[in-house]
Amino acid sequence: MSPDDAAVARLDHRRAGRTGEPEVVYGEGKSPATVARLLAELLAGGSCPVLATRCGPAHAAAMPDAEYDPVARLLVARAAAPQPELGTVVVACAGTSDLPVAREATGTLGAFGVTCDLVADVGVAGIHRVLAEGDRLAGASVCIVVAGMEAALPTVVAGLVACPVVGVPTSVGYGASFQGLAALLGMLTACAPGISVVNIDNGFGAALVARRILRAGRR
Amino acid sequence: MSPDDAAVARLDHRRAGRTGEPEVVYGEGKSPATVARLLAELLAGGSCPVLATRCGPAHAAAMPDAEYDPVARLLVARAAAPQPELGTVVVACAGTSDLPVAREATGTLGAFGVTCDLVADVGVAGIHRVLAEGDRLAGASVCIVVAGMEAALPTVVAGLVACPVVGVPTSVGYGASFQGLAALLGMLTACAPGISVVNIDNGFGAALVARRILRAGRR
Amino acid sequence: MSPDDAAVARLDHRRAGRTGEPEVVYGEGKSPATVARLLAELLAGGSCPVLATRCGPAHAAAMPDAEYDPVARLLVARAAAPQPELGTVVVACAGTSDLPVAREATGTLGAFGVTCDLVADVGVAGIHRVLAEGDRLAGASVCIVVAGMEAALPTVVAGLVACPVVGVPTSVGYGASFQGLAALLGMLTACAPGISVVNIDNGFGAALVARRILRAGRR
Amino acid sequence: MSPDDAAVARLDHRRAGRTGEPEVVYGEGKSPATVARLLAELLAGGSCPVLATRCGPAHAAAMPDAEYDPVARLLVARAAAPQPELGTVVVACAGTSDLPVAREATGTLGAFGVTCDLVADVGVAGIHRVLAEGDRLAGASVCIVVAGMEAALPTVVAGLVACPVVGVPTSVGYGASFQGLAALLGMLTACAPGISVVNIDNGFGAALVARRILRAGRR
Amino acid sequence: MSPDDAAVARLDHRRAGRTGEPEVVYGEGKSPATVARLLAELLAGGSCPVLATRCGPAHAAAMPDAEYDPVARLLVARAAAPQPELGTVVVACAGTSDLPVAREATGTLGAFGVTCDLVADVGVAGIHRVLAEGDRLAGASVCIVVAGMEAALPTVVAGLVACPVVGVPTSVGYGASFQGLAALLGMLTACAPGISVVNIDNGFGAALVARRILRAGRR
Amino acid sequence: MSPDDAAVARLDHRRAGRTGEPEVVYGEGKSPATVARLLAELLAGGSCPVLATRCGPAHAAAMPDAEYDPVARLLVARAAAPQPELGTVVVACAGTSDLPVAREATGTLGAFGVTCDLVADVGVAGIHRVLAEGDRLAGASVCIVVAGMEAALPTVVAGLVACPVVGVPTSVGYGASFQGLAALLGMLTACAPGISVVNIDNGFGAALVARRILRAGRR
Amino acid sequence: MSPDDAAVARLDHRRAGRTGEPEVVYGEGKSPATVARLLAELLAGGSCPVLATRCGPAHAAAMPDAEYDPVARLLVARAAAPQPELGTVVVACAGTSDLPVAREATGTLGAFGVTCDLVADVGVAGIHRVLAEGDRLAGASVCIVVAGMEAALPTVVAGLVACPVVGVPTSVGYGASFQGLAALLGMLTACAPGISVVNIDNGFGAALVARRILRAGRR
Amino acid sequence: MSPDDAAVARLDHRRAGRTGEPEVVYGEGKSPATVARLLAELLAGGSCPVLATRCGPAHAAAMPDAEYDPVARLLVARAAAPQPELGTVVVACAGTSDLPVAREATGTLGAFGVTCDLVADVGVAGIHRVLAEGDRLAGASVCIVVAGMEAALPTVVAGLVACPVVGVPTSVGYGASFQGLAALLGMLTACAPGISVVNIDNGFGAALVARRILRAGRR
Repeated sequence: MSPDDAAVARLDHRRAGRTGEPEVVYGEGKSPATVARLLAELLAGGSCPVLATRCGPAHAAAMPDAEYDPVARLLVARAAAPQPELGTVVVACAGTSDLPVAREATGTLGAFGVTCDLVADVGVAGIHRVLAEGDRLAGASVCIVVAGMEAALPTVVAGLVACPVVGVPTSVGYGASFQGLAALLGMLTACAPGISVVNIDNGFGAALVARRILRAGRR
Repeated sequence: MSPDDAAVARLDHRRAGRTGEPEVVYGEGKSPATVARLLAELLAGGSCPVLATRCGPAHAAAMPDAEYDPVARLLVARAAAPQPELGTVVVACAGTSDLPVAREATGTLGAFGVTCDLVADVGVAGIHRVLAEGDRLAGASVCIVVAGMEAALPTVVAGLVACPVVGVPTSVGYGASFQGLAALLGMLTACAPGISVVNIDNGFGAALVARRILRAGRR
Repeated sequence: MSPDDAAVARLDHRRAGRTGEPEVVYGEGKSPATVARLLAELLAGGSCPVLATRCGPAHAAAMPDAEYDPVARLLVARAAAPQPELGTVVVACAGTSDLPVAREATGTLGAFGVTCDLVADVGVAGIHRVLAEGDRLAGASVCIVVAGMEAALPTVVAGLVACPVVGVPTSVGYGASFQGLAALLGMLTACAPGISVVNIDNGFGAALVARRILRAGRR
Repeated sequence: MSPDDAAVARLDHRRAGRTGEPEVVYGEGKSPATVARLLAELLAGGSCPVLATRCGPAHAAAMPDAEYDPVARLLVARAAAPQPELGTVVVACAGTSDLPVAREATGTLGAFGVTCDLVADVGVAGIHRVLAEGDRLAGASVCIVVAGMEAALPTVVAGLVACPVVGVPTSVGYGASFQGLAALLGMLTACAPGISVVNIDNGFGAALVARRILRAGRR
Repeated sequence: MSPDDAAVARLDHRRAGRTGEPEVVYGEGKSPATVARLLAELLAGGSCPVLATRCGPAHAAAMPDAEYDPVARLLVARAAAPQPELGTVVVACAGTSDLPVAREATGTLGAFGVTCDLVADVGVAGIHRVLAEGDRLAGASVCIVVAGMEAALPTVVAGLVACPVVGVPTSVGYGASFQGLAALLGMLTACAPGISVVNIDNGFGAALVARRILRAGRR
Repeated sequence: MSPDDAAVARLDHRRAGRTGEPEVVYGEGKSPATVARLLAELLAGGSCPVLATRCGPAHAAAMPDAEYDPVARLLVARAAAPQPELGTVVVACAGTSDLPVAREATGTLGAFGVTCDLVADVGVAGIHRVLAEGDRLAGASVCIVVAGMEAALPTVVAGLVACPVVGVPTSVGYGASFQGLAALLGMLTACAPGISVVNIDNGFGAALVARRILRAGRR
Repeated sequence: MSPDDAAVARLDHRRAGRTGEPEVVYGEGKSPATVARLLAELLAGGSCPVLATRCGPAHAAAMPDAEYDPVARLLVARAAAPQPELGTVVVACAGTSDLPVAREATGTLGAFGVTCDLVADVGVAGIHRVLAEGDRLAGASVCIVVAGMEAALPTVVAGLVACPVVGVPTSVGYGASFQGLAALLGMLTACAPGISVVNIDNGFGAALVARRILRAGRR
Repeated sequence: MSPDDAAVARLDHRRAGRTGEPEVVYGEGKSPATVARLLAELLAGGSCPVLATRCGPAHAAAMPDAEYDPVARLLVARAAAPQPELGTVVVACAGTSDLPVAREATGTLGAFGVTCDLVADVGVAGIHRVLAEGDRLAGASVCIVVAGMEAALPTVVAGLVACPVVGVPTSVGYGASFQGLAALLGMLTACAPGISVVNIDNGFGAALVARRILRAGRR
């Protein structure tokens, strides 16, 4: 039995009932065949949505009916119906290098039927760019802010809006960025209120936090 | 001019209009007289609530009309009216050593009029304790989970509830806890979805994140 | 003389007499030919068991009579007879990604003739899973608990059983898991008594600790 | 309510039934009155043994009937009866500076009725010292090895005995010892089999691991 | 001979000729008497300016003719004549807690006769504050930007001005700010061009860098 | 849309007006086709200079009219006219391994029309080498000092000249150099005044800081 | 028995025969009475030299016949006869703040009868200072170089002399010096050959290394 | 001009006169042709010895007349005549994985004509092994001790011999060895006197320190 085979046997079909989130496949380190088999099993079980994160083109080729976003490295085999009444998640990112993480977030939200709006390339080195997007930010029920290097964007955004801000530090950068450590520490010590943080490069996790926040307001 | 005097001159009375949170005084390192003067200024300006965090007994003595919680080190000079329609925040903490941080969160929420429920001493070393509190957890619109050392509680809670979980690592512990670093890394790498994290010992910050989440649902 | 040749000359045939553990070959960084030669030498010397850790398929191919587990990356050329009277080691792991380390432990224990029981996929994000395995945990003389990311499982297990718990942090995770550092710090600061910890990913080492514990009780 | 008062209300009287270890009071940061009250409550509840760790002379003065060891900073209000049939724990320490941690271990074991033998001052800079204690080491069912600085002693001991070795790194040292980090990393990467490690300065924790090991052999 | 006495003997009177900066006394850890004697020696030697950094009130009391700023902890025994033709240094700081470091910079510049303009309390959590100071920033030949916590201000400023920006991370903050490490890494990885960084809390060092920059333009 | 395509859409043509620096393309991680397209767009827009950093031979091949320096990994599609009146930047480096970073600095300066002088191989292990270059150092309006390992060169240079020194730590070295961390900490704690520091290996950033310094003097 | 009493019982009188160094008392954390008793015991045993390191004035007062250096914090109860034939150790230090560590080295060497020459205040920020001491450096059989902050001095010295250089990083500095870490990494990565390093602030250890080197040459 | 070409131009032919060590080529990252050219230049210049470190088989193939040791990765184009009167360097290593570093040391010493004795595989997990080599250790004028993982061997050796011990931490190990950091910290905090340390994996550097020590004794 290969490690991949071992993985197949262990899908948790009960998760959705408990927490509202179905099982999602983490593609990194799994073979295309295994990812395909896991997605097929989830499709057969009626899970919704059905998706796999951190997938390469080979995974996509093994699952030709699924929708694949090569920037986000996301493979969506079944998307939930749109749920606009939950509100909108604005996903803002500082630079184009942060796009893969930002789109992992937007792609995940889309698969869950959550409306989202991607505000890209609003790094604070050109502060006019984020200020010019004030209306879009004001339309958010939650903001996900994705930034690497010094990760100053969440502080600026949290000072402009009244909704919760979920920060996603990215591993973008070199030298003293130490694979995202600088961005992580920067977001954790942000001087604006209303910011909480997920793991480095974890666009998927931020999307699920945002969805829980939207649903919290509807209870 | 002393550093304290310098601080007096700089209250930002406009913050509430922009983000919904009034200015709050950070007491640590400020003299009792300065804290009292700042709170008086905010009271006179009509700010609501009016509070100071990280205050000792001497700060409290300088502000005899304010309510003081020595566990939370919180000085509340004016509290907002209760707003039960926003929903309830459950604040759970792992051990009694985490209580000061947990009560900084509950005290802050109380000052803002947010209903909260403190579920103390439910560390996962006796897992029955957190399981026994299932109903209280289920009543939450947001959970704040406060834990030091290995900080396993947020993962367990996030697997039991469907609402957002805000983790607060604490500096409780010694040796390899490295002043809260172990707890911080543990929460950031939690294997359950729906968790985001604030700075070490930042009960106040978690309360403001929770309040933004509650308000997000009411927009 | 290549480094591999140098290694061949240095097997310590006296170790078993001193500590009860024969020499074991560490395969990583050695050529298949060298591993095969070392195992052959140990077989010829009457050592028991004879095994090599961290071996790939090429090592296995060079030693066709040995039993190879590709998940554990373990090559067993001679196994000891079963010794059920020593008691049972339960090896619990949090997720499927931790399986290679868990099976390095079970495979090593098996080669030494120790009875073991693998309880996989009982991560605390779905706490019911570990609680449902209470009977199997109760049957343990020693528990080895393998977990990456925030590594909360050892705390939960140590609060459920009365036997010693040996924690093995794994390098599973990304970002703030820092190659197993988060899991390592988490286990070292666990708030439950009875836990001790071995190096990151060291399933083999945990197995030998567990075997020493079993034998300690029989002196 | 002070933090100390809060602590009083939360003793877990059920722990002994579950894991075999009664609740133990952690004295650091608690007032003498609080520690005395907690110990009195445990005495009244029939708990055995009843002890508090990390206590200073003021705590001892508040509990005059308890036995106090100022080196170990341990306050024992009721000791369990001796249980020599469990076997002997040898506690070895490298230098006199490690004695407080070593004696926290021996004092805890003594309170639990476990036989132990303290082998002090056997640092490997004078290797003859540890070799001269071979007979005492050979009498151990478990060895606890306490060492700071480069922490080489566990490796040497684990190569001399066949029983499990529990390493306790200490914060003894300065400069590049980084409050015990050097010793911790040293023990985790020890090249001898059979070693597992507890938190820095955690003599109490090592004692409980050792006791679990002794009891594992008697099941 | 005490360490202070030893220090007295070693003033480098030649430094000004080589690099344009006279010897400056670092007060921390030196007795008031020693600081006074060193300043007197420099005054007698004709050095200009004559100042001591990191001085407390006791140092000031021992040197009654010198000007003392308790916020900056700076003791100026002789200031240079104003040199407005060199241009203006704007010193911007994010919060009131950063004031001591900012004023160490402005006080040092003042002692050297350099014109400077302190723009305080322009943290990016209220981005309007820094934008409102555009004219003052535009008047700078050099900007020194002082910030703790996530230290986002240098990036924003460097994107608004064309002059060099010297960042001074401060140790302001707690938890994941790790005594200024978060701010330091943030400034080093800033995504705007034109920023260079000095040591944590080194307002004095930033002032000397700024002065060298001003003089560079006049060669 | 590939990540490269996404990048194409986002060039900030307004940057030069605001800060005096046009947009520059960061080549690492972008395809040769994308870099070529971005450079072409900047050329068409009239930007000056037009360059891309961190480019390999494949990028150069895709842009045959641009000038390529394989040591600096710099691709210059249009250089600005020489501006000798701004003064000279001396770029000094400690060893030949630091040359790529030093030449990223000189190449960037050259593209901006700034006069520079590369003083290579003046590591302080042979102190006569840097002393012998005193005249060239004295001719500088700004010194950029590039050094890896213990990075002692900036301190020595800053003690010899009166102009600002911009330190660039490099990732040259192994073991305890920790990818440039040793050099970075060394430069930040340099005991000579007048030094500020940019990110590890950031020759480009140092060049832009130096250019801002030169221009500061001409305002 | 107090910890101090425990320490008294454990002097290793055999060390000198084995390694040539008698037992030396580490004063930090021991009471004056204990240090005095230990020194008396060593004097009575005929040990030579007899000294205690890291002693304060109270230790000195308890041992009035011993010679005390308050800068080095060294208490010498019996010094060995001078041994000029072994050669001279030059101890060089960068700044006056490094003097306590440098004099711990010279005081220890003096107590062992080794000739030494203290070359103070030759930091490389004024490179002429170390060059001016060329003759004294050339007279060394071994150089001990003591430096904090960026610790560039060992590299410069090792490039000037042919004898072994023993580097002692000091904890002098603030911010990014991280209690001597910057200096330690700097010395370990020094680009000049012939340098080896001891622990931070360990002037005593460097003295013993130097003495072993001198004696190595006389075998 | 390629980086390799740049390197060719910069050999320092004067080093031997100053410090007694000729220039040595560092092969890593240089092309075989460049290494060959540099060695040829040194041969032509009369340098002695002539060697290159960190060379692979391709470098060796480009320099067929030089002697190549693939374990040490050392290429010796001209060796100095044996100089037995300097004394013997014993190079001890803990495990076979440390052999490449140990043999970089012995190969370098050999090229310089220094007598050395390699004592391999004497890790302290089998303490009898190092004790059995007492006579060889006693014959040393200097000991180089090479060890990875917890690096306990230098402490044991320094307690057995009276000569200087030069520790070389290696990057051997995984997990908490953190690429040699555990070994480095362990050696720096060793509790035996007479140990100094060089950079991780720096067998070459240790050899040059040892040679300087031998020569120090002959002045």
